[in-house]
Amino acid sequence: MAKFYGIGTGPGDSELMTVKGANLLKRVNILYTPEAKKSSKSLALSIVEPYLSDQLEIKQRHFPMVSDLETKMTSWKEIAKEISEDVRSGKEVAFITLGDPMVYSTYSYLLDLLDEDIETETIPGIASFISMASQVQLPLCIDEEQFSVVPATVSSRAIQTAVEQNDTVVLMKVANHLPKVLSVLKKLDLLEQTILISHASQTQEIRKMTIKNLQETDKISYFSTMIVYKNRQLFKIKEEKR
Amino acid sequence: MAKFYGIGTGPGDSELMTVKGANLLKRVNILYTPEAKKSSKSLALSIVEPYLSDQLEIKQRHFPMVSDLETKMTSWKEIAKEISEDVRSGKEVAFITLGDPMVYSTYSYLLDLLDEDIETETIPGIASFISMASQVQLPLCIDEEQFSVVPATVSSRAIQTAVEQNDTVVLMKVANHLPKVLSVLKKLDLLEQTILISHASQTQEIRKMTIKNLQETDKISYFSTMIVYKNRQLFKIKEEKR
Repeated sequence: MAKFYGIGTGPGDSELMTVKGANLLKRVNILYTPEAKKSSKSLALSIVEPYLSDQLEIKQRHFPMVSDLETKMTSWKEIAKEISEDVRSGKEVAFITLGDPMVYSTYSYLLDLLDEDIETETIPGIASFISMASQVQLPLCIDEEQFSVVPATVSSRAIQTAVEQNDTVVLMKVANHLPKVLSVLKKLDLLEQTILISHASQTQEIRKMTIKNLQETDKISYFSTMIVYKNRQLFKIKEEKR
Repeated sequence: MAKFYGIGTGPGDSELMTVKGANLLKRVNILYTPEAKKSSKSLALSIVEPYLSDQLEIKQRHFPMVSDLETKMTSWKEIAKEISEDVRSGKEVAFITLGDPMVYSTYSYLLDLLDEDIETETIPGIASFISMASQVQLPLCIDEEQFSVVPATVSSRAIQTAVEQNDTVVLMKVANHLPKVLSVLKKLDLLEQTILISHASQTQEIRKMTIKNLQETDKISYFSTMIVYKNRQLFKIKEEKR
């Protein structure tokens, strides 16, 4: 029976996809791909391009990035209905999502909206923060350490608690929350224990640096993440300038 | 110049390696692999087997799993010295580690012990808890949620705090800490929100179940992990019996 596959593309480098994801993409009939802005080519699609066959039908669909849940749900329901019909007609269908499908992805909403009789399988991917740790070659956790992944959209208080309770903290989506994040890290005297990484694994744009000289008003890439390494010596990290 | 590559094998299924890791293994000259017990074949080695060339030299080395840090360091220093010499003589050298190299791996100790002039690159892998979330198809985090990864070796108090402070908590190494973990989750009324997964992605052994009927005295696999999903509806998970 035909199946629906949700596939994580990894953080940006086509070679950081799993072998399983790459092999599935070679043999499915239809590929659904999210298109953040109308008529712009998605990053996810450019990552998987080396693995696509000539026979593949690509259905680029618009997933509105708006805060209004109802508008989003209406679009997703339509796409879920179309996918369900494709699978029921015997087509193998894949959907691609950046990073890992189970880490901050709208994929899980889509999965919930598919018809109940559709068989689904999810193929994990390298999450951006996992890739970043390998880039700087500093472990997220060893031995009895614990780490947490926190979006910088939460309150100062919540960020502070996470940093106090864990050995390592990954702060996602920091670009629009720089003053708040810097203020918490300064208060906890952790500016020199924190690195900023932008555009993980999109090789033309990788930048990693400690944040001790970062200013509240600095503009940083939307794809920026900080890792607060409370227990590591960071002096080995070479600062890279563009 | 020759280089040293640390490669994550992913959780167990050979197809869950990255394309990059698989391609590197095809072309390196020497592969170092950990051997937990003397003369037993390592799980990591069996995962990468499909990608190894006939010309590859495999050096299986014993990494003692003892609590005495000095004994461990002595062994690792010897291996690091051997690796450094191999790379300096012009050989491309790889080392494989289960899951992701930056998540609870002894690889980072080895990396620290290599000679300073050796160029190193770390290739990420699918961490076991990332793979588990895809297996049960329940997201670790969406929107503004935060999640934490905690080894069950820490105190009851630390486990409770992590569960209270996060939306999702991954509890690693639960096998030898079942009474403690069950007691915390019972106290917080989260037994029905928690799943147990054993041997992720080693297809012959996967078992996933809610823990509401688990007893303190039950024997569970050493490779068992729990995920506490405070915000998810788990009733869709089909319990699997061996």
